Amino acid sequence: MKLYGYWRSGATYRVRIALALKGLDYDYAPVNLLKGEQKSPDYLKVSPQGLLPALMTDDGATLVQSLAVIDYLDETYPAPPLLPADPLMRARARQIAYAIACEAQPLQNLRVQKYLREEAGLDEAGVKAWLDRFVKGAIEAVETMVAETAGDYCVGDQPTLADICLVPQIYAALRFGVDLAGAPRLNAIYERCTAHPAFVKAHPDNQPDAARG
Amino acid sequence: MKLYGYWRSGATYRVRIALALKGLDYDYAPVNLLKGEQKSPDYLKVSPQGLLPALMTDDGATLVQSLAVIDYLDETYPAPPLLPADPLMRARARQIAYAIACEAQPLQNLRVQKYLREEAGLDEAGVKAWLDRFVKGAIEAVETMVAETAGDYCVGDQPTLADICLVPQIYAALRFGVDLAGAPRLNAIYERCTAHPAFVKAHPDNQPDAARG
Repeated sequence: MKLYGYWRSGATYRVRIALALKGLDYDYAPVNLLKGEQKSPDYLKVSPQGLLPALMTDDGATLVQSLAVIDYLDETYPAPPLLPADPLMRARARQIAYAIACEAQPLQNLRVQKYLREEAGLDEAGVKAWLDRFVKGAIEAVETMVAETAGDYCVGDQPTLADICLVPQIYAALRFGVDLAGAPRLNAIYERCTAHPAFVKAHPDNQPDAARG
Repeated sequence: MKLYGYWRSGATYRVRIALALKGLDYDYAPVNLLKGEQKSPDYLKVSPQGLLPALMTDDGATLVQSLAVIDYLDETYPAPPLLPADPLMRARARQIAYAIACEAQPLQNLRVQKYLREEAGLDEAGVKAWLDRFVKGAIEAVETMVAETAGDYCVGDQPTLADICLVPQIYAALRFGVDLAGAPRLNAIYERCTAHPAFVKAHPDNQPDAARG
């Protein structure tokens, strides 16, 4: 398999965690978002939409959308599972994952922040207020969800899809200065995850394209 | 089962389509988003995050996040399936669903539009430019995806999760005046879906809380 991604892309980070949790080897092809390489002719041959990440399977199919890639990996390489076995607990893990992927990340990603600054004319305080409203708000909603489900991780005592989405979200929130004081449970889970070997391997700083210094 | 929702909420619309495709009966409890009823004390007892929709199962569990609810329904009531059997085609259906649910809908929903107008100070032309960039952009990306997968519906000849996400998205895009001329395949699939009995049953106009006149 070959993963096209960018070290700091939250969606790429999710896929790297899933691959690492499953112990799957893959080639890594960096695509520099800051240089706009996702819109280069070469990359558009891989992903016609210019989306990151993309996973090329051993059969040569190219998959995009991080959550679809992770579902595919979980169905194709079932051990260890990324969702609990019980249908209700599966739903609990997914609702955390989707609360992050559909409500926090889309309103915080680079192209949205760039638009807010450059085209909507928001200053830094305006962008900060936006991130507080939507990203902090979504994270605090997830904090109330995990109150019912968490063990060592978001749902029970094993990492699931929920943690795969949580960790890149907290990483980004810290990077963008979002106040996480209202999410002590999530902070504790984040700390636990950052010590887990699969999450360490997947961390942005540990990728070949990470900016140094 | 009991569905808490709002006739025009796109996420509620998705769940109604899934329930109708599976032929499942349910009670419907309207929660008026325009009146802020999702933050009322009564509703916060149902969904502590004040999120719509919420599905109360026959066991009394309350599930939120439309995609998690739909996955739960598909696992608990498997017929007819909402995803193809083949892992690659399942991924294709999911990547369309997630492209809509994680890239189009979050940037178009009511609370975001309200913030853009009332707090970010965008005028109507500014909001239109925002919707064009993000919502039209995401829809046109999906248009290129279905070029490889569509039969009568987004993926093959049966409705899937992709169509469940597509139809409320096109409904919203039409409502907000997003130009869909660049998405002829999706327009054709939308027309086909709107004639399908399950999609008719789930349509906002056919809900008990639909505004009349």
